[in-house]
Amino acid sequence: MKTLIVLNFKTYSESTGEKAVRMAKYCEEVSKESGVDIIACPQIPDIYRVACSVKIPVFAQHIDAAGAGSYTGHITAECVKAAGAAGTLINHSERRLLLSDVDSAIQAAKKAGLKTIVCTNNVAVTSAAAALSPDFVAIEPPELIGSGIPVSKANPDIVSGSVSAVEVVNPRVKVLCGAGISTGDDMAAALRLGAAGVLLASGVIKAKDPKAALFDLVGKL
Amino acid sequence: MKTLIVLNFKTYSESTGEKAVRMAKYCEEVSKESGVDIIACPQIPDIYRVACSVKIPVFAQHIDAAGAGSYTGHITAECVKAAGAAGTLINHSERRLLLSDVDSAIQAAKKAGLKTIVCTNNVAVTSAAAALSPDFVAIEPPELIGSGIPVSKANPDIVSGSVSAVEVVNPRVKVLCGAGISTGDDMAAALRLGAAGVLLASGVIKAKDPKAALFDLVGKL
Amino acid sequence: MKTLIVLNFKTYSESTGEKAVRMAKYCEEVSKESGVDIIACPQIPDIYRVACSVKIPVFAQHIDAAGAGSYTGHITAECVKAAGAAGTLINHSERRLLLSDVDSAIQAAKKAGLKTIVCTNNVAVTSAAAALSPDFVAIEPPELIGSGIPVSKANPDIVSGSVSAVEVVNPRVKVLCGAGISTGDDMAAALRLGAAGVLLASGVIKAKDPKAALFDLVGKL
Amino acid sequence: MKTLIVLNFKTYSESTGEKAVRMAKYCEEVSKESGVDIIACPQIPDIYRVACSVKIPVFAQHIDAAGAGSYTGHITAECVKAAGAAGTLINHSERRLLLSDVDSAIQAAKKAGLKTIVCTNNVAVTSAAAALSPDFVAIEPPELIGSGIPVSKANPDIVSGSVSAVEVVNPRVKVLCGAGISTGDDMAAALRLGAAGVLLASGVIKAKDPKAALFDLVGKL
Repeated sequence: MKTLIVLNFKTYSESTGEKAVRMAKYCEEVSKESGVDIIACPQIPDIYRVACSVKIPVFAQHIDAAGAGSYTGHITAECVKAAGAAGTLINHSERRLLLSDVDSAIQAAKKAGLKTIVCTNNVAVTSAAAALSPDFVAIEPPELIGSGIPVSKANPDIVSGSVSAVEVVNPRVKVLCGAGISTGDDMAAALRLGAAGVLLASGVIKAKDPKAALFDLVGKL
Repeated sequence: MKTLIVLNFKTYSESTGEKAVRMAKYCEEVSKESGVDIIACPQIPDIYRVACSVKIPVFAQHIDAAGAGSYTGHITAECVKAAGAAGTLINHSERRLLLSDVDSAIQAAKKAGLKTIVCTNNVAVTSAAAALSPDFVAIEPPELIGSGIPVSKANPDIVSGSVSAVEVVNPRVKVLCGAGISTGDDMAAALRLGAAGVLLASGVIKAKDPKAALFDLVGKL
Repeated sequence: MKTLIVLNFKTYSESTGEKAVRMAKYCEEVSKESGVDIIACPQIPDIYRVACSVKIPVFAQHIDAAGAGSYTGHITAECVKAAGAAGTLINHSERRLLLSDVDSAIQAAKKAGLKTIVCTNNVAVTSAAAALSPDFVAIEPPELIGSGIPVSKANPDIVSGSVSAVEVVNPRVKVLCGAGISTGDDMAAALRLGAAGVLLASGVIKAKDPKAALFDLVGKL
Repeated sequence: MKTLIVLNFKTYSESTGEKAVRMAKYCEEVSKESGVDIIACPQIPDIYRVACSVKIPVFAQHIDAAGAGSYTGHITAECVKAAGAAGTLINHSERRLLLSDVDSAIQAAKKAGLKTIVCTNNVAVTSAAAALSPDFVAIEPPELIGSGIPVSKANPDIVSGSVSAVEVVNPRVKVLCGAGISTGDDMAAALRLGAAGVLLASGVIKAKDPKAALFDLVGKL
């Protein structure tokens, strides 16, 4: 399996609108040069314009459990798929879902042909998420998100523990890790712990030179 | 003031993706021919492609109270504005917000240059919403939404009561009404009760011929 | 293991305040005569007075993930324990929790010495809940709740499927089933499917003679 | 109108279970000696035992919009009334409600004979809350809650602005203020700004000598 980098654009002004397109093009360029898979997760209103502009996979940051019907303001799997998304984050630390809605959202995504990454906060919740059969779980201790302190160094046990737990519950699910990741060293440490890749945001988006930050990230692979 | 029709595309499959663009073009055509202002409210991932395709105003169905920053999956005023929206629904019956978030969302929308329509469920809540100074409130008794029974006939007092209440609390706010509206008669009844226009969805989107339904709607003005 | 009946008082007027105490005394009487364990789940403000009045276990209908601290209006494990509760429902169909809060609530309950019953809506969610190591999961298809159509007859596969799934993920967790249960036949069918007991509400609370309904429930054991 | 002190026990361990009863007795003693009205707001599971132990009014910290029926874990106006509460906080900063649920909760409380205090975060939201006709609004800037910096000194304009705004929208509603209040000076400053009283928590509950803190609070009236 190839190493995976998932870049969450969050609602940062540095990655909104036209700047989301530019950020996604950096991802595309670094992916092409390095051979590492990079997924761009722009804000939901930006999915269409980003997906029209790059050839790397574009994921939504969130979908709701609701499908087609009498729902207003909900983000459906069908609609983000139609806008060009190839997958979606679900249950990010900043956008937690009800347990039953995590399940419904995964089912809706599968039906629409979207890949799924379910975010979790500890080993037990990682096990629970794996039982729902997403494509990926991404373990992210909330206290490290945006901290600049990489989970792969600050709490290696939560990463290796998640890898082991998923192996038991549902070995087809792959494990990503996130929170505080910003350098090639952090990335390499994550892979050594058994992760299939990383989920990150501010380490790249808020960098003075995001493209250089991406190149650094893939530099030790 | 000109009469206003606000068409909520909801998450109906009949108004998703390419079909959202087609539905918005019907709105544009009827608006042009009739001289009545029609606003299209597609799903959030469809805003960009719809706004690129028509010259009528496009509104979001929802924004969150969150702004630019460390937020994932949230819909910000800045981002829907960048995608081409001119305004937004807030607090729709199917997407209720916390009282304090209704206020924050209105403030965020104003700062981003978006017009605001706050949906309400009774006269007291209409008064409360008007105190927060949106551009419009839209009174929609939840039990009539999607019923085919027009609020302007089933519960005229809730419309005229909302108009009177807003006059007292904040006379610059305009009142729309919705729920069950589908014909030109329903529309005319709403205007006679003091509404500045209507908010509707299934009556047009689910019609066999949505364009004909729109023409019927404006036919008695 | 003894058979278990968990009676959810919901917010029914028939089981509020003084009537909650009376209902709990019926449970106590039937438990004593039949030798079947019966747990009473009154509304949260009624826990103290009910727990002071009966010797059967009293469970809360819900706790929040919040603990002691700057929280207002939250239901903590410590406080329901201090009021006399021996356990709690978590994530009932009418009071769903975020995935991460289901985990936090289970941990808070364990720390406070409360038993936990996590409610679920399908086999996948049952597996996920079992991975979080509560004492019990209670599978309740939402569409059958309050229907009078017993899950043990209408959807036996969801009960036996939940029993099998839990066996794989976490065999120390016991499985209850609920939704539509009201008679001794429904109860016996549930036990044959591998359930350790049932969770029910309206079938007893709304019965003309709740005590007779409880006696009927245990009559075929 | 008499001056009012509303003491929110939050979920602090210093005011849980038996300690809630003791804290309420301090309130009763200080109220009796000073002639100032003091309302105790214990956690919801503690309402019954507190209300049985003191003669001062006991308020809930929160009620839900739900009433009697098929609801699990919800806090109904009827049930807290049956437990001995005389009123309730609604929409506290730590337990925000949907706009429509603030209205429903106020209506449910009135029907059950409970007084209502709706908490708000700025002048606009205070106006909106006043439009829903509770007995009181309590303006509490969230950033000052638990800060020890009294709103009556740090942001006097938000208090006097709330008093003026309520006068326009609904003059029968009385205004309390809270956040950072802990001394008799803070209290006196609040009253000079037009508030009818204060809402406070940690300033008393977390004090080394809560009874002395209460006596200090009423000492300059």
